[in-house]
Amino acid sequence: MAKAVVLMSGGLDSCVTAACAKRDGYELMALHISYHQRTENREETAFHRICDYYEVQERFVGSIDHLARIGGSCLTDPNIAVEEADLNRTEMPNSYVPFRNAHLLSVAVSWAEVEGADRIYIGAVAEDSSGYPDCRPEYYAAFNEVIRLGTHQGHIRIETPIIHLRKRDIVRLGIELGVPIHLTWSCYQNEEVACGRCDSCALRLRGFAEAGMSDPIPYVR
Amino acid sequence: MAKAVVLMSGGLDSCVTAACAKRDGYELMALHISYHQRTENREETAFHRICDYYEVQERFVGSIDHLARIGGSCLTDPNIAVEEADLNRTEMPNSYVPFRNAHLLSVAVSWAEVEGADRIYIGAVAEDSSGYPDCRPEYYAAFNEVIRLGTHQGHIRIETPIIHLRKRDIVRLGIELGVPIHLTWSCYQNEEVACGRCDSCALRLRGFAEAGMSDPIPYVR
Repeated sequence: MAKAVVLMSGGLDSCVTAACAKRDGYELMALHISYHQRTENREETAFHRICDYYEVQERFVGSIDHLARIGGSCLTDPNIAVEEADLNRTEMPNSYVPFRNAHLLSVAVSWAEVEGADRIYIGAVAEDSSGYPDCRPEYYAAFNEVIRLGTHQGHIRIETPIIHLRKRDIVRLGIELGVPIHLTWSCYQNEEVACGRCDSCALRLRGFAEAGMSDPIPYVR
Repeated sequence: MAKAVVLMSGGLDSCVTAACAKRDGYELMALHISYHQRTENREETAFHRICDYYEVQERFVGSIDHLARIGGSCLTDPNIAVEEADLNRTEMPNSYVPFRNAHLLSVAVSWAEVEGADRIYIGAVAEDSSGYPDCRPEYYAAFNEVIRLGTHQGHIRIETPIIHLRKRDIVRLGIELGVPIHLTWSCYQNEEVACGRCDSCALRLRGFAEAGMSDPIPYVR
């Protein structure tokens, strides 16, 4: 059975992405990277619960402390407050972690290369997102070229199965694929009850509302 | 004065590359990444000595432990012996660390983005090298595209000033630029006296021999 490394933060998008990798016939290798973001403990708990649900044997939990030391984001610098959501914002939100996804993909590629996986799944979303540059399709096309040129065999490819979906359609796909949505965690701010006010909560709540569903996780309001 | 992040292992190539960045008019931001490679302490010592020589104020020393946990290389897995050099080898040497340079470049880009540097210098060498895929010019062209698409401003660029040089010409350029060659460390195997037998020593020694110079660092033989 071919293997795929799935980047799993513990959030909704990456959980639906893991379900897509299973649907596509891959054995999952689950990769979780903490980078001293505010909610790292809660996200790691969600990661393991989701892995247990899918009976994933191969799990890798890594930690990148230099992203926090470099800072520049409200997620990693405790002196920068998490902004309230403004889904019509045009400038980059302060939750942008500079060049973060390249760090995550690099770990995924190294692990895939050594363990013989030939796909990497990541739950990047371009529409209905916070507008991070490293969540767009052209970024992944360029990164695939780096993988082709920068690995020994050159055959590993990134898959972004939900990149063109709106949040409501991610919710619907998750339900269709039997995703354990109640085990996921998306909030940028809190670790016990989701704040409902950060960008990530706002996007998630709007997605559930537009899908005509209610979100099973607890919110402050 | 424009700033450049320079990836500095402590070896000859990256030291000459730092001198190129100075020659090009940049203020140096020195970046050193350990990844639990065999000679990490000796390399970090060399890094600081070179930074002292160039009076570099901004230094960042990072550590990536997952590269060692993922393994697959004699540099990071103590159960894989360092091969004796065979400079006519055609297969990939076991010192290849899967996708390593993407990890290093990712840290460099994140740091550059937050600190406002617009260049990243790396001492990759394509000719007279061990044949690692992530040391070729086309790899850096592709990575530049990832930076353009995956950062907020998109303006940061990687420079590879010695990528087309043969080792003898790197030695000559180093001497021309007044590089403190005696402070550098290249050996994959040892931390006190260079082994003279690994790929890295063999390439370095051949470079000095072809340049008609003697290498100022101590060797076992």
